Amino acid sequence: MADRPKPGEFEVICRHFAPLATTPGALGLRDDAAILRPPEGHDLVLTADALVAAVHFLEDDPADLVARKLLRVNLSDLAAMGAVPLGYLLTTAWPTSLGEAWIAAFATGLFRDQAEFSIALLGGDTVSTSGPTTLSLTAIGSVPAGSAVRRDGAGIGDGIFLTGSLGDGALGLLAARGELPATPPEDLDYLLQRYRLPEPRSTVGPALRGIASAMIDVSDGLVADAGHLAEASGVAVVIERSALALSPAAARIVATTPGHWPTILTGGDDYELLFTAVPEVLPRIEAVARESGVPITRVGQVGDGEGVSVLDEAGRPLALPAAGWRHF
Amino acid sequence: MADRPKPGEFEVICRHFAPLATTPGALGLRDDAAILRPPEGHDLVLTADALVAAVHFLEDDPADLVARKLLRVNLSDLAAMGAVPLGYLLTTAWPTSLGEAWIAAFATGLFRDQAEFSIALLGGDTVSTSGPTTLSLTAIGSVPAGSAVRRDGAGIGDGIFLTGSLGDGALGLLAARGELPATPPEDLDYLLQRYRLPEPRSTVGPALRGIASAMIDVSDGLVADAGHLAEASGVAVVIERSALALSPAAARIVATTPGHWPTILTGGDDYELLFTAVPEVLPRIEAVARESGVPITRVGQVGDGEGVSVLDEAGRPLALPAAGWRHF
Repeated sequence: MADRPKPGEFEVICRHFAPLATTPGALGLRDDAAILRPPEGHDLVLTADALVAAVHFLEDDPADLVARKLLRVNLSDLAAMGAVPLGYLLTTAWPTSLGEAWIAAFATGLFRDQAEFSIALLGGDTVSTSGPTTLSLTAIGSVPAGSAVRRDGAGIGDGIFLTGSLGDGALGLLAARGELPATPPEDLDYLLQRYRLPEPRSTVGPALRGIASAMIDVSDGLVADAGHLAEASGVAVVIERSALALSPAAARIVATTPGHWPTILTGGDDYELLFTAVPEVLPRIEAVARESGVPITRVGQVGDGEGVSVLDEAGRPLALPAAGWRHF
Repeated sequence: MADRPKPGEFEVICRHFAPLATTPGALGLRDDAAILRPPEGHDLVLTADALVAAVHFLEDDPADLVARKLLRVNLSDLAAMGAVPLGYLLTTAWPTSLGEAWIAAFATGLFRDQAEFSIALLGGDTVSTSGPTTLSLTAIGSVPAGSAVRRDGAGIGDGIFLTGSLGDGALGLLAARGELPATPPEDLDYLLQRYRLPEPRSTVGPALRGIASAMIDVSDGLVADAGHLAEASGVAVVIERSALALSPAAARIVATTPGHWPTILTGGDDYELLFTAVPEVLPRIEAVARESGVPITRVGQVGDGEGVSVLDEAGRPLALPAAGWRHF
């Protein structure tokens, strides 16, 4: 950990972060850098995401959940490449007004998720800022050499599949903002939880290596992320809205307020995996779903052309402007 | 690059950063993550450092120099482990007020140093902030398996050595603040340059694998960093002040104002390498210096005990309190 925390104000942070360095290669965060021996015959997969207070999380969000979300959005990117987590580096810019209790809770959240996802802190940096709390995390995973699942492998005739349920993250954000007034409290709680603590598909992603022809995680919204996959692969993606799996809470909301469909189709923060596969591997996909306990739904088809269409129940394409949903 | 720049305000950033992704594994910054095939039989070395505007650089510092310093402080950490650079990930939090010209110049600086140090952008994230520009960089290098040079290998009887010249970085900061009024302009220019654009010892570091018993880069100041090395190795370090190599500019300053010695001994930002080695390898150290063109000076000795002493010209220890220099 270069530019390690300076004595005084940052001793406190050393105290909270050193216990997260649970792998020998982290050298207790006390050397210039960490050492990682990559598994033999494997490629490394690397991703980085940043969160800023008041932009990506609310100042009064629980610190442990902020930490876990930061780690999990990165784990979701690893999963989308089929990678197994190895370690992470963390840089934090804290406002001087931030109390030790917040930092302690933040570290506790990381510690909890490190155990759940078998990943350890390798290093990082801690600085102070006059601005909002700014958190940046680099996650490193591995795949057997040459087996990373990219976005550009979808072929015409492939089916397109989605893990879990769609739209809970975006509806959870509406719930956090108090914009779902008629929703029962238990549904609000469920959606809020899905927004605040996404579930990276860290088991399903690696299990889909050799099965998925292309894969992406749904962080920008289904339509946008299907568009990224279609563009990278040079194909068209057609999604049937009626095939999309919704959680009971989301289903109740669109049943009474169909005007929330755009949120479900284009809102982000779901962190489900969207992938394509040839029809022949359907039994293997069913096996992955069964063994992981994560539902996987076929939601459409890859065809010739470009772009994303979403069809309504009558098979008519919904209007989907490039920059998002405009009409419903 | 997960959470890739959103259309509109961030297209501009894609435009400037995509050309930095000069390695195939970066996937053009267009996938969920990057793929890196580690050199066979090698360990990876990983480090991360963050810079915040108004804390680590001045708002009106040239953007290309800020970028290069950000990359170089990380390269210095890799060098201190004996590692050769492979790639880096970058997360940036920009204030919305920051103009495209700044970002363009920032990217130009990175591009220039990528060529100089044979390193490529692998991925990252770009977000906006209501606070100061906050830059976080994770650098990845490699060493033959098991050959990383750590801080904890110094043995009693080893010599202690330092590359280049000491104190220019800290004096350069004084120069930037206008606190060296009596100094000739050409000396000010030299010191400012050393502060703004440190020279990571990226050739010397790897050349010292198998020679150095312990190594650290001097970023926190000679006394503090020698202290880190001594503590990690469980030894005492004795430095002779008269043996330290100063640049002509720094030598002129302490000749007229000996009160600047504490700045030289305890100021940071030098990014020289401090290392220990057994006496038998002295000819190999001389060969490294000759072949790299970087002077290497023997500055002291490793002994039994703990802590750091700096001896004056008469062999008397200078008072060096734990938290830095107090008396001179």
